[in-house]
Amino acid sequence: MPGNSFGELFRVTTFGESHGPAIGAIVDGCPAGLKLSEADLQHELDRRKPGQNRYTTARREADEVKILSGVFEGVTTGTPIGLLIENTDQRSKDYSEIKDLFRPGHADYTYHHKYGVRDYRGGGRSSARETAMRVAAGAIAKKLLAQQFGVAFNAGVVQIGPHQTAPEQASFDWQQVRENPLFCPDAGMAEKAGEYLRDLLKQGDSVGARVRLEVTGVPVGLGEPVFDRFDADLAKALMSINAVKAVSIGDGFAVAAQLGSEHRDEISATDGFLSNHAGGVLGGISSGQTVIAEVAFKPTSSITKPGQTIDRFGQQQTVVTRGRHDPCVGIRGVPIVEAMAALVIVDHWLRQRGQNPDPQK
Amino acid sequence: MPGNSFGELFRVTTFGESHGPAIGAIVDGCPAGLKLSEADLQHELDRRKPGQNRYTTARREADEVKILSGVFEGVTTGTPIGLLIENTDQRSKDYSEIKDLFRPGHADYTYHHKYGVRDYRGGGRSSARETAMRVAAGAIAKKLLAQQFGVAFNAGVVQIGPHQTAPEQASFDWQQVRENPLFCPDAGMAEKAGEYLRDLLKQGDSVGARVRLEVTGVPVGLGEPVFDRFDADLAKALMSINAVKAVSIGDGFAVAAQLGSEHRDEISATDGFLSNHAGGVLGGISSGQTVIAEVAFKPTSSITKPGQTIDRFGQQQTVVTRGRHDPCVGIRGVPIVEAMAALVIVDHWLRQRGQNPDPQK
Amino acid sequence: MPGNSFGELFRVTTFGESHGPAIGAIVDGCPAGLKLSEADLQHELDRRKPGQNRYTTARREADEVKILSGVFEGVTTGTPIGLLIENTDQRSKDYSEIKDLFRPGHADYTYHHKYGVRDYRGGGRSSARETAMRVAAGAIAKKLLAQQFGVAFNAGVVQIGPHQTAPEQASFDWQQVRENPLFCPDAGMAEKAGEYLRDLLKQGDSVGARVRLEVTGVPVGLGEPVFDRFDADLAKALMSINAVKAVSIGDGFAVAAQLGSEHRDEISATDGFLSNHAGGVLGGISSGQTVIAEVAFKPTSSITKPGQTIDRFGQQQTVVTRGRHDPCVGIRGVPIVEAMAALVIVDHWLRQRGQNPDPQK
Amino acid sequence: MPGNSFGELFRVTTFGESHGPAIGAIVDGCPAGLKLSEADLQHELDRRKPGQNRYTTARREADEVKILSGVFEGVTTGTPIGLLIENTDQRSKDYSEIKDLFRPGHADYTYHHKYGVRDYRGGGRSSARETAMRVAAGAIAKKLLAQQFGVAFNAGVVQIGPHQTAPEQASFDWQQVRENPLFCPDAGMAEKAGEYLRDLLKQGDSVGARVRLEVTGVPVGLGEPVFDRFDADLAKALMSINAVKAVSIGDGFAVAAQLGSEHRDEISATDGFLSNHAGGVLGGISSGQTVIAEVAFKPTSSITKPGQTIDRFGQQQTVVTRGRHDPCVGIRGVPIVEAMAALVIVDHWLRQRGQNPDPQK
Repeated sequence: MPGNSFGELFRVTTFGESHGPAIGAIVDGCPAGLKLSEADLQHELDRRKPGQNRYTTARREADEVKILSGVFEGVTTGTPIGLLIENTDQRSKDYSEIKDLFRPGHADYTYHHKYGVRDYRGGGRSSARETAMRVAAGAIAKKLLAQQFGVAFNAGVVQIGPHQTAPEQASFDWQQVRENPLFCPDAGMAEKAGEYLRDLLKQGDSVGARVRLEVTGVPVGLGEPVFDRFDADLAKALMSINAVKAVSIGDGFAVAAQLGSEHRDEISATDGFLSNHAGGVLGGISSGQTVIAEVAFKPTSSITKPGQTIDRFGQQQTVVTRGRHDPCVGIRGVPIVEAMAALVIVDHWLRQRGQNPDPQK
Repeated sequence: MPGNSFGELFRVTTFGESHGPAIGAIVDGCPAGLKLSEADLQHELDRRKPGQNRYTTARREADEVKILSGVFEGVTTGTPIGLLIENTDQRSKDYSEIKDLFRPGHADYTYHHKYGVRDYRGGGRSSARETAMRVAAGAIAKKLLAQQFGVAFNAGVVQIGPHQTAPEQASFDWQQVRENPLFCPDAGMAEKAGEYLRDLLKQGDSVGARVRLEVTGVPVGLGEPVFDRFDADLAKALMSINAVKAVSIGDGFAVAAQLGSEHRDEISATDGFLSNHAGGVLGGISSGQTVIAEVAFKPTSSITKPGQTIDRFGQQQTVVTRGRHDPCVGIRGVPIVEAMAALVIVDHWLRQRGQNPDPQK
Repeated sequence: MPGNSFGELFRVTTFGESHGPAIGAIVDGCPAGLKLSEADLQHELDRRKPGQNRYTTARREADEVKILSGVFEGVTTGTPIGLLIENTDQRSKDYSEIKDLFRPGHADYTYHHKYGVRDYRGGGRSSARETAMRVAAGAIAKKLLAQQFGVAFNAGVVQIGPHQTAPEQASFDWQQVRENPLFCPDAGMAEKAGEYLRDLLKQGDSVGARVRLEVTGVPVGLGEPVFDRFDADLAKALMSINAVKAVSIGDGFAVAAQLGSEHRDEISATDGFLSNHAGGVLGGISSGQTVIAEVAFKPTSSITKPGQTIDRFGQQQTVVTRGRHDPCVGIRGVPIVEAMAALVIVDHWLRQRGQNPDPQK
Repeated sequence: MPGNSFGELFRVTTFGESHGPAIGAIVDGCPAGLKLSEADLQHELDRRKPGQNRYTTARREADEVKILSGVFEGVTTGTPIGLLIENTDQRSKDYSEIKDLFRPGHADYTYHHKYGVRDYRGGGRSSARETAMRVAAGAIAKKLLAQQFGVAFNAGVVQIGPHQTAPEQASFDWQQVRENPLFCPDAGMAEKAGEYLRDLLKQGDSVGARVRLEVTGVPVGLGEPVFDRFDADLAKALMSINAVKAVSIGDGFAVAAQLGSEHRDEISATDGFLSNHAGGVLGGISSGQTVIAEVAFKPTSSITKPGQTIDRFGQQQTVVTRGRHDPCVGIRGVPIVEAMAALVIVDHWLRQRGQNPDPQK
């Protein structure tokens, strides 16, 4: 309830600051009997890890996750799974000069006014470092969903600044996501955007991004009307990721210009749904179609271009964020988007199984 | 937890189907000592009420709300507030012919597969009728917030199909919202969109809409990192409204094309924040700036243009939804958007007061 | 969360004051497909109803419950079940003289200091009238459990003041509970205690009681270690009933004097558990044995013997509670104890089904 | 929600098995600005630590707690506090011979049937080792309550088998609790019970205990009617402790024999409450009087006297629990009882502050 937990039946609670001794999580409610090892989690964590290429921060974290409980003889026991990653590369000294500053676009100002104190080292709790635990927990959710329903997650960067995938592109090339460092489902865009980012790095600036998510294999019937709708919980999950400013389901904002006769997905007795404007959700409940969502990541404010701000004494200051930062945080957002979606789906699956395990056909 | 409750400390739980005897809600956690009467709620309900003009359904509901508990001698007592509206104009017979059909774009299909049974009269629980209780509960939240902080809500329709407010419009004319039946903050757009809708009604079609929300007076410090962020809970609240397909905060999807040096809201010692790209939220916590959000409403699928679908026996069918329906459900969405935002704000205010009532400056 | 809800997946939220227009509840999370009518609820409510015999208050409430939603064509739909009972016999004038008094042993003092205001008519929210909704909701839980597992509830008054069932009594005569007005599983005790109560009524005093509960048919595996144990949630459920001051499971306080070799319930390959000191719970999880609990009800403080107290201005006062009151509130507590136990069991059943539907044997 | 969390606003979630690499907890919702160090927690943990004297298990755990997050420069920041204790003395081999046995009186049987798998080493999750984290979290709660209201906790063992404190004892000698190894508030009883336990150890048996708790300084107004009553949550908290089988508030089960004129605590304008039969709770809300509760601990089933049971293949077996075990687990229960009570009080304080920070007098 106090904000660091997600999910009702499959519940993840995280802790940890960017420059404290460790970050960690408790995954409570995981069904018993799942084969699980640290390697299952590490695989996903490695996708998110910084320092992997020139477009992500040079900070190097081993990000080695340990499972401290809830798994016995290689199998989940139904008891809480404790996860821990020690922080190895902290360099706190980088941050001492900004301890009293409210960096524009950062959480410094709001944390200070909310709590009265804050851990200013590397953003403390507001650092994107926290999302490593989302990815680790999401890896467990993904494994459960893959085994149970064959659920598959595809996410990728479809816009970076002026560069987008072609709008007419009916289906994305999800294989490409694994083959370029921008997690982009379009090799052409990846090349152009890569060039653009290299230029941006020289200027000391950053840029936003749009990430698309497509999830196949989600069973029909997930989601709890009227407030805990599947899409409402997905929106919350995605908006809770650092730097996300917008979430859409299916056709998203484009529906404002659509006609009812155009938007409604008609159904054929032989072919099923004939379109998917709804993005796999009807009345807040999953329809069995591909779940489609998009999110927008803002450009990080951690840039070397000087900016105007105040310190906590109200004095005017100019700030330059040196440290080590991604020019486009949306790129590393891709595995986080998948992880959060997985947490929503697994949670709603258990909720549905609790209330209505065998709905009539 | 089972989906029909919203909020942690200021918690609203609703019940009721479109064509059952009544709909109702319990508002639990309202602070004691607030002056409250049925008129306070009725005022907001009347804004949402159908049958008010030619652009909304002809169904006529008195929508008279009764307060059954929690208020004594005109003042809230801190105990749960029971709310009830009897359904007076039900006409269930209109719906008998579609009892076995899965209307395209409706929740028929998903409710059927989730629960095995469904109340098909007027959409049952999936009907927008349910939102009346959100508006009633939101009216209590609004009154609390107005008294405590002077929080003011402005929402309006900024797009209907091809008609939008001018993009360069720096500030909307919120007074206009009260003066045209489309809740539009732009008299020019209201006129053109009205003409467009009259035409659409003749064609038996519907159209989507985009609604903008601006909330002033929200205190700094609301929101619980890392999952129950202020913007994450707002996204959930808004996405949980019937027909909403997208939610944005501040500059929304436009941030994908912005530079960090452009997006970050710089701060001046004399003038405070110099811009509001963030929409009043930094790091998931309210910044004290105006909270800005937009949502997209899909066009209702309840139209008289025939559509292809199947029935629950898997047979191909053609469906025409007669009944009485709005050509643009986004219009009546305006007070609902305000209500859901008010519920988020009041809940996070009480949560902040519980944990950190007197943060240091 | 704000206190008027019970259960996680099968969640009951109640509202209503003793002398307001109505009391009500929302039962959210009930599985779809259960045959349910108002008669199912009324049957249980009638057991709890006041005015049935000389040992319970003369206040006459029809206590006619209406189902307002969640049931369609005689079957639950999986959506929230709205329940309402109108208050018909209120006589508010009886209470005006005590509006500023803190009656000793009542909630007047604490409600006043907690909320600053209170509905003093008949105890307002703190009245036992609130428990009618627990009984109504519990009736739904009981029906589900009876159909699914054949769960059966037996509860009865085993002590009233100096009168107890014989301690050596191995098994209680649960049939007797239906045959005497004291809900006592021992005809002999019922006769003596009846005489005792008639005497007490003449003196204007009241007396406490102890109620025993035995539930058969509870499946093995219910309960969530480590905090939401089956017995912990049962303890909360029972202690939350008005006037309850103690709860025990199995041998209860007697275990403080037992040896380990005496207490542990040994298991036989042919006969199963050879004893039931544990009361059907091991390690916080139901064992499949009969669940056994006892609770103590305090004597009501609503008596005509004068008592010393203060008013809200701090002045010394003498109070006599006239009104209409039970001499032994524990008697009517019997169906409430059953109802709360049923709510705990059904909730933990759904929780277990969500996490571990098919545990290995 | 899945069972390993406690509290609504001050929320503790724990993980860890007896013989895994570590146990840990996340304390979420702690107000910012509290001075806190590992020493504050260690002090309480040392009271609970095994291996301290001949009456507790010889297992030696350093039980050194580390704070991994949520504290910066010696002060809580309002973000989640991660706690970790590494398990240093595990000796898993002791348990291999009972891996297929359901030890009578243990959770083996129920964990197996609930989850299908279980970590049999030292009881796994059902081990009392889990309670170390309750004590660590409770230490934070205690420090907050002591600073804010001067709340003080006194708990002690008032019965071990046939040995009790004198019933007429009006006030216990809480200083004594710190001076004898049995945490007994009566030197005479401690001596006799000590002799009794030494004898019991020779016999390879165990015994139950009763623990009394008195909390002073609790402010009036804590507790949320009607389900989350202060006493209901306290009952849950205490019943959730391993081996607890009964909980009473104030006069407890004795109220079944009391008259209303005897039980009600009268109030004097000059002296306040004239008695405390209610144990500091009226109508589910704290009254400002001393909170009084008692709990019964069953005798541990981990004894060397042979017992009959079955294994997971249904075969009859005789079991002897060697390992290292306390003859009376109630003794080490004392700091756990205090910790759980502290968690309830701090949580209800924050909840009250959220809803009604300034109730009228």
